[in-house]
Amino acid sequence: MPLPDHIHPVDRQLLQRADKEMLLGQRGCVVWMTGLSGSGKSTIAAALEQQLHAAGRYTVVLDGDNVRAGINNNLGFSAADRMENIRRIAEVAKLFLRNGAVVVCCFISPTAAIRAQAREIIGAEDFIEVFVDTPLEECERRDVKGLYAKARAGEIKHFTGVDAPFEPPSAPALRLTTINRSAGKAADTLFHFLLPRIKPLP
Amino acid sequence: MPLPDHIHPVDRQLLQRADKEMLLGQRGCVVWMTGLSGSGKSTIAAALEQQLHAAGRYTVVLDGDNVRAGINNNLGFSAADRMENIRRIAEVAKLFLRNGAVVVCCFISPTAAIRAQAREIIGAEDFIEVFVDTPLEECERRDVKGLYAKARAGEIKHFTGVDAPFEPPSAPALRLTTINRSAGKAADTLFHFLLPRIKPLP
Repeated sequence: MPLPDHIHPVDRQLLQRADKEMLLGQRGCVVWMTGLSGSGKSTIAAALEQQLHAAGRYTVVLDGDNVRAGINNNLGFSAADRMENIRRIAEVAKLFLRNGAVVVCCFISPTAAIRAQAREIIGAEDFIEVFVDTPLEECERRDVKGLYAKARAGEIKHFTGVDAPFEPPSAPALRLTTINRSAGKAADTLFHFLLPRIKPLP
Repeated sequence: MPLPDHIHPVDRQLLQRADKEMLLGQRGCVVWMTGLSGSGKSTIAAALEQQLHAAGRYTVVLDGDNVRAGINNNLGFSAADRMENIRRIAEVAKLFLRNGAVVVCCFISPTAAIRAQAREIIGAEDFIEVFVDTPLEECERRDVKGLYAKARAGEIKHFTGVDAPFEPPSAPALRLTTINRSAGKAADTLFHFLLPRIKPLP
């Protein structure tokens, strides 16, 4: 059946990721930062974003603050909701990735299964797993948000590291330590690790 | 309580929308295209994206294809799921907006209540409602996807325009007609309407 002549399916093709990357002058990727609460993920991400931005790279940070308050504001903390939380985050990251962005995701994402789901949605070739490897004792000593104290007091249940497991990644693309090392230094390391991966193709 | 000296809350501040807009050399906004199935929303959006891209504008199109297959792949077509569908789309659009993008959303969004929800999430000052005003008879005559035939045959229930209402926007920012007018021409009109709104602030 011929289409009406004012409908041109070929024009309906949206631009592709490569087009967006060309416009932005970079290659997109998803940096997936995993680690305990208080390990420094968000602090490192914020410092990384500033460095990337200063270098002219279009960067998008997804973290608990902008995700739990928005797209995921109807999810709780049951096991099912935690999986759905990460599923949606990964799908949002994928939309940004397809539009050429360097996406930095900061979520505890405590289990191998949760991170595997994110990797599968995003695509292994674009998924850069970064382990912010701060020991529990140090995270608890910092206790920036007072959450460990509440978890130890039983006011928060299923808190990662206290009464819920954290499974360290077995083979992260990069492992960052934060003991005796500022978040800025850790971000530096990550920045230089990323640069060759995000520079535009020749 | 003083923070450990390796935690610098001030550094955790993420970059703001204005920073991203500066990098991209544009102002962001959300163009919300509403209209019947087959009215031409996606075709116009694809042509608009090409024009904006050619003009150096960073543009992101959200439509049924990339949303229903991803972030909303666990939603059906019940009334509750339709509201949740639009809610998530609006939240995703808002994330792109906050990162400086020109976002083009193509969804039937048939009721005033649904569009009001999207407007509220995105923020009225950034929400540009565009009504693709193609009459039902013309959409049905085109029936590009054969959906009207299925709806008339009772194979699809609650199909907008057939057995579910479409409430035309009472005061859209722009109304586009598509009778005797190519999608390219309609996209032209929209493109020139948008240009002054997305050019960078001096």
